[in-house]
Amino acid sequence: MAIHVTVWNEFFAERNDPAVQATYPQGLHAQIAAGISRLEPDALVVRTASLDEPGQGLAPEVLDTTDVLFWWDHERRHLVDDALVQRIVDRVHCGMGFVALHSAHFSKVFRALMGTSCRLRWRNGSDRELVWAVSPNHPVAQGVPFPLVIPAQEMYGEFFDIPVPDELVFISSFSGGEVFRSGCGFYRGQGRIFYFSPGDQDYPVYHNEGVLRVLANAALWAAPAAKILDQRYAPEYSAHDWFIENPVGGYERR
Amino acid sequence: MAIHVTVWNEFFAERNDPAVQATYPQGLHAQIAAGISRLEPDALVVRTASLDEPGQGLAPEVLDTTDVLFWWDHERRHLVDDALVQRIVDRVHCGMGFVALHSAHFSKVFRALMGTSCRLRWRNGSDRELVWAVSPNHPVAQGVPFPLVIPAQEMYGEFFDIPVPDELVFISSFSGGEVFRSGCGFYRGQGRIFYFSPGDQDYPVYHNEGVLRVLANAALWAAPAAKILDQRYAPEYSAHDWFIENPVGGYERR
Amino acid sequence: MAIHVTVWNEFFAERNDPAVQATYPQGLHAQIAAGISRLEPDALVVRTASLDEPGQGLAPEVLDTTDVLFWWDHERRHLVDDALVQRIVDRVHCGMGFVALHSAHFSKVFRALMGTSCRLRWRNGSDRELVWAVSPNHPVAQGVPFPLVIPAQEMYGEFFDIPVPDELVFISSFSGGEVFRSGCGFYRGQGRIFYFSPGDQDYPVYHNEGVLRVLANAALWAAPAAKILDQRYAPEYSAHDWFIENPVGGYERR
Amino acid sequence: MAIHVTVWNEFFAERNDPAVQATYPQGLHAQIAAGISRLEPDALVVRTASLDEPGQGLAPEVLDTTDVLFWWDHERRHLVDDALVQRIVDRVHCGMGFVALHSAHFSKVFRALMGTSCRLRWRNGSDRELVWAVSPNHPVAQGVPFPLVIPAQEMYGEFFDIPVPDELVFISSFSGGEVFRSGCGFYRGQGRIFYFSPGDQDYPVYHNEGVLRVLANAALWAAPAAKILDQRYAPEYSAHDWFIENPVGGYERR
Repeated sequence: MAIHVTVWNEFFAERNDPAVQATYPQGLHAQIAAGISRLEPDALVVRTASLDEPGQGLAPEVLDTTDVLFWWDHERRHLVDDALVQRIVDRVHCGMGFVALHSAHFSKVFRALMGTSCRLRWRNGSDRELVWAVSPNHPVAQGVPFPLVIPAQEMYGEFFDIPVPDELVFISSFSGGEVFRSGCGFYRGQGRIFYFSPGDQDYPVYHNEGVLRVLANAALWAAPAAKILDQRYAPEYSAHDWFIENPVGGYERR
Repeated sequence: MAIHVTVWNEFFAERNDPAVQATYPQGLHAQIAAGISRLEPDALVVRTASLDEPGQGLAPEVLDTTDVLFWWDHERRHLVDDALVQRIVDRVHCGMGFVALHSAHFSKVFRALMGTSCRLRWRNGSDRELVWAVSPNHPVAQGVPFPLVIPAQEMYGEFFDIPVPDELVFISSFSGGEVFRSGCGFYRGQGRIFYFSPGDQDYPVYHNEGVLRVLANAALWAAPAAKILDQRYAPEYSAHDWFIENPVGGYERR
Repeated sequence: MAIHVTVWNEFFAERNDPAVQATYPQGLHAQIAAGISRLEPDALVVRTASLDEPGQGLAPEVLDTTDVLFWWDHERRHLVDDALVQRIVDRVHCGMGFVALHSAHFSKVFRALMGTSCRLRWRNGSDRELVWAVSPNHPVAQGVPFPLVIPAQEMYGEFFDIPVPDELVFISSFSGGEVFRSGCGFYRGQGRIFYFSPGDQDYPVYHNEGVLRVLANAALWAAPAAKILDQRYAPEYSAHDWFIENPVGGYERR
Repeated sequence: MAIHVTVWNEFFAERNDPAVQATYPQGLHAQIAAGISRLEPDALVVRTASLDEPGQGLAPEVLDTTDVLFWWDHERRHLVDDALVQRIVDRVHCGMGFVALHSAHFSKVFRALMGTSCRLRWRNGSDRELVWAVSPNHPVAQGVPFPLVIPAQEMYGEFFDIPVPDELVFISSFSGGEVFRSGCGFYRGQGRIFYFSPGDQDYPVYHNEGVLRVLANAALWAAPAAKILDQRYAPEYSAHDWFIENPVGGYERR
């Protein structure tokens, strides 16, 4: 059963900065989509979406058929509609996977899911980044070099103001000596969230095979389980007088 | 050094429902404030606040001098101003403790800090609730009966849609056989959050000594540490070219 | 690729207590093996082993071809050879799954893997046990009734002296009002461990379809990942001067 | 109420290697004891113990009056008596704090408490180590430079085979680019355990003020809480028919 992935990108620098355009002529979302499709052709069905498309790329018919949403934003993140943010958050709570990339640590969606400021330190100085698995048996770390070497990257450093990750998979070091929790899994409601920090637009990070392996793994890991709690009441309990809040307001008996 | 606690309450049922008024003539916030002051007279300095007061009870001069904020809301929670919610969340991120009580599982502040729906099951049927410490050495469990017996309470049952607690302290059972993670600690930014579920307005729960002991402990546990990270750079690193996002927008070099 | 499961049992009460024999004529290991094979015929290849067999049922050729080891012991646990215990622990560290059942909370293997006393409270009084999923999306909870109702069981109650579980899946309540963390996942080295508390020999617990569903899920969840860290060094790092301890003593350069 | 700390050391290299002797003439245990006493003179009462003393330095009257035990071993760790190891583990389960330093990652006590192999990578190449707080509000991180700079140290690198720490406080990077979870808190039974990796005998690490600040904080953090669970039964439950295993075998009714 294929997993439907949508890779969303603000798609701005690639159209306005010649250096970025040279690295990602079709946008970094296109590069990511092609890469993870190539690595997992049987498991993943991948499409792209971006900010300037109708419905900011995520009209209901797109979002409602997405199993895992990848997200990259930066300078244009303030333009993402708050109602769309809420729809995405609700859908994660109902089981959709969400993979936040690099500067999406500060996206509206990721911050709403974390409940923290998500602040961090950074320096755009072409540091070498080494990504080390501290949970080497984790599904997202399978097939990834140890360490994963990224010759040039923007530095992201601690303190990274996130909740303690439910699963800490990768820790990075940088030429300057800084460290960063660069690969983190979270569970929120029925949904799984993975944050992976490598991927600044100024460097060809998404051309790195090891990085693409991480992203393909993250798509597989974040895909929703087939079954949902509410359909599994024991017959002994069907007569119980339970109430439960509805996500959209009010409550019902079940 | 005293811990300044503010106990906030929507203070509605106590003024409109004679049965609740009989239990809490001055409001449940007054009962809680008196109880924890009595138990920890040297450590805690406690005041109360409520929705209908100026600034919804939390004008800047109040909030900015609060070390730990207790919160109880229910039917009137939608009236809490979104700007105030944001100010409280920001202050928790900067170190203020937050203690969410009973139906405050669905308060705007708690949901924003959790990033989940915070839905649960409930039944107002006068169940006996037993509160068991599963982390008996935790500071919030000290001096609390094992189990803590609450003769009559509204049932709150799983699945409780919260992130995995950073510290799971109490699990409750109810006469109906349901279970609930009833005492949970969370870390968000520099702040500590404790959720404690006993406390429906229809029962005299905040007259129970064991419950008051939990709340006094929670105030002590959630109080902010004195020192803040950003003041502690090593001299070797003061010349580094680091940037950090500001909570109020933009970023700065430090 | 099939998962090879071995269900180990001390197999004592079933041969010495007529009431237990009536419930489990071939031993509870045989009942479990038949049940999980029936539920996952394509994924699981299941055999049984018991204390009185040669090599205490786990001669090297058996243990070394086991992907997931189920374990039930009680009165005869002190007879398990310490060298065998160490071999099992080592193999878990290298990736074998381990599923500890009921009174195996106090087995030598489980205690060695936990590092705690594993003490708990109990009462054999035919309590009704209700097993509730508090992590309903967890693989081990899929297809399990909510709650799972066990009409009669020995009571196991908190405080259960285990490390905080890496994944808390089930919490049980009992007729007496006690609660227990009854389904817990742990990661130790490359291996996964699941503890599931229902299953006293005096009750027909392993004839319950929901219980068998949990056990079949646990076998799938605990199966080892295919790839091992040490085979995945980046070429950039092959010349590094690293040392690593050997499990069997000494160290080597790699 | 003073916290009684015992700093235990195998005290071998300091008496047999002139270079180490020059750094720690009285042994590194003496240096640590003096350092943390100076930093917390009111809170800590500190003594030392070592392998060649009677009872391997931890006769019952010493161990039974120790609130927090610091531990450093390396080449002589195999000489520590297994019965003493068991007594220490039991006492940690009953509430004694345990602080494992540097190569004590491979001590018998630490491995028994973790349940994992505790293997890691290392290289003694005089790397610069930077220790970063990733939980800056944690009590053990208070007053510690950010980062803590150790000019020369043995490299300890991932994968460090420990259970996921209950509290991850520090992550280190090294000149070679490696990372390491260098400050980790664990809860086992009633006891708290802190592992801190800086401290090879070949470098003057325990003369570093920031390192001593960490160790003094760790002593305060690991000290046992005053009250124990079993003394706090609710009167409603005193007649219950509960059994509980004894640590030393058998069980009793309570």
